[in-house]
Amino acid sequence: MTTAFLIDEIRRKESFLCIGLDTDLERIPEHLLGEKDPIFAFNKAIIDATHHLCVAYKPNTAFYEAYGVKGWKALEKTIRYLNRNYPEIFTIADAKRGDIGNTSARYAKAFFEDLGFDSVTIAPYMGRDSVEPFLAFKDKHTILLALTSNVGAFDYQTRLLEGNELYKQVLETSRTYENSENLMYVVGATKASFLSGIRQIVPDSFLLVPGVGAQGGSLEEVCKYGLTHNVGLLVNSSRGIIYASNNVDFAKAAAGKARELQMDMSMELRRSKRFIL
Amino acid sequence: MTTAFLIDEIRRKESFLCIGLDTDLERIPEHLLGEKDPIFAFNKAIIDATHHLCVAYKPNTAFYEAYGVKGWKALEKTIRYLNRNYPEIFTIADAKRGDIGNTSARYAKAFFEDLGFDSVTIAPYMGRDSVEPFLAFKDKHTILLALTSNVGAFDYQTRLLEGNELYKQVLETSRTYENSENLMYVVGATKASFLSGIRQIVPDSFLLVPGVGAQGGSLEEVCKYGLTHNVGLLVNSSRGIIYASNNVDFAKAAAGKARELQMDMSMELRRSKRFIL
Repeated sequence: MTTAFLIDEIRRKESFLCIGLDTDLERIPEHLLGEKDPIFAFNKAIIDATHHLCVAYKPNTAFYEAYGVKGWKALEKTIRYLNRNYPEIFTIADAKRGDIGNTSARYAKAFFEDLGFDSVTIAPYMGRDSVEPFLAFKDKHTILLALTSNVGAFDYQTRLLEGNELYKQVLETSRTYENSENLMYVVGATKASFLSGIRQIVPDSFLLVPGVGAQGGSLEEVCKYGLTHNVGLLVNSSRGIIYASNNVDFAKAAAGKARELQMDMSMELRRSKRFIL
Repeated sequence: MTTAFLIDEIRRKESFLCIGLDTDLERIPEHLLGEKDPIFAFNKAIIDATHHLCVAYKPNTAFYEAYGVKGWKALEKTIRYLNRNYPEIFTIADAKRGDIGNTSARYAKAFFEDLGFDSVTIAPYMGRDSVEPFLAFKDKHTILLALTSNVGAFDYQTRLLEGNELYKQVLETSRTYENSENLMYVVGATKASFLSGIRQIVPDSFLLVPGVGAQGGSLEEVCKYGLTHNVGLLVNSSRGIIYASNNVDFAKAAAGKARELQMDMSMELRRSKRFIL
């Protein structure tokens, strides 16, 4: 998917919501456990109920790998269901991969070609040759971890690497990568106060922002410092939406929570002086 | 597996060889492509021919994910085959994972409990709470990326974070993690000259050393600076062993290459003044 198409969708839906499909058999409604593939049944119901309120879905691969072959099958079914029925949706494999060049190329093939995701999250620690194999895919997006939403972000990311915070160094260096126009970045909503500094380095790039809701980040703060003339934000909520209820009404409850966030986003878009709806 | 057991095995086999199972359908012998599961058939033949020469196998998950559900099944079959037939072998999921706490806990469960690996490789960028969920598993080992074998290692890892190289900071910080006795570290053989500095920070820890062979690292150099009184090294070779031939004799050829490395390792162990065989 092109970035221009994604921006059009954001405009059309007045939403830059990404829904995290962190599907956990211990948390989904009990009545689904009798289904042949409860993980996919849950995802399908959530997607059917919320697709008009969000522009992206983000399955975190850990939740699927935790169920082995069965989990991997559910992931495949989920991405195929999305691509077939809702091709306008931007899809993110939250995989946080990264390896030496020839191995990163394998991961890129797995997520972009075989599974057909629009984007994948990548860890920056191994440097340029671990990232560029992902960037080589046209109209696919590589979402580099910059400043993550967890406490451990302060262990290395915010510390000074030769006078410049490591996460800023990651942002700056990545702009010199081949096909760097295919980059987006993870910036946790819990670190919203860092966003104005980040926008000085990557003024136009899309940021994937986890941590609104369960982790305590504020949508208003994120928009205040992060919203650009092209929106430039995908704000993710996982648990707060998909586990809004664990009764038979779970999909409807999820849609209710997604609607609340979409309305907040619509308001932010309408009042923004930078983005013209 | 306990570290003591691993050391006993190294002593018994006079080998600290790890064989990387980076199985690629485009590189395995053609006659295997007719098998029901060519990836597993290849791995099984390599394992049966080489298990007495090495102490560890390391499938890189990228090569399995690249084949989707089929690949994941082959990975499951491979680790189950190893655990059933060669329980004395140390197994490494080269997955380079790492995520926020509750998600890292999922990955830990997937690799340690469900698949039954003895260890998994982890990226350090997200800090303490992304690593500690892995360390919580008794007699399981978390192999943290410190200084990788690729060129990109110079992008961040070797640069100064508040006066100390980032990889050294990763080593030092990790020693304060809860259950840090379950840590091992990745240090590329291409960076052997850094090993004496590394040994000052982690004098006794096991290092997983990729990059001997295809990537140009030297076994002699690695041993000179890295070998400890408890060996403390697992040296990996992947392509140089498993693709020694792509004819019907591939397993025998792999064993030949593994034997060469094992003999070099035996010589290094016998002449070491630090390790007493």
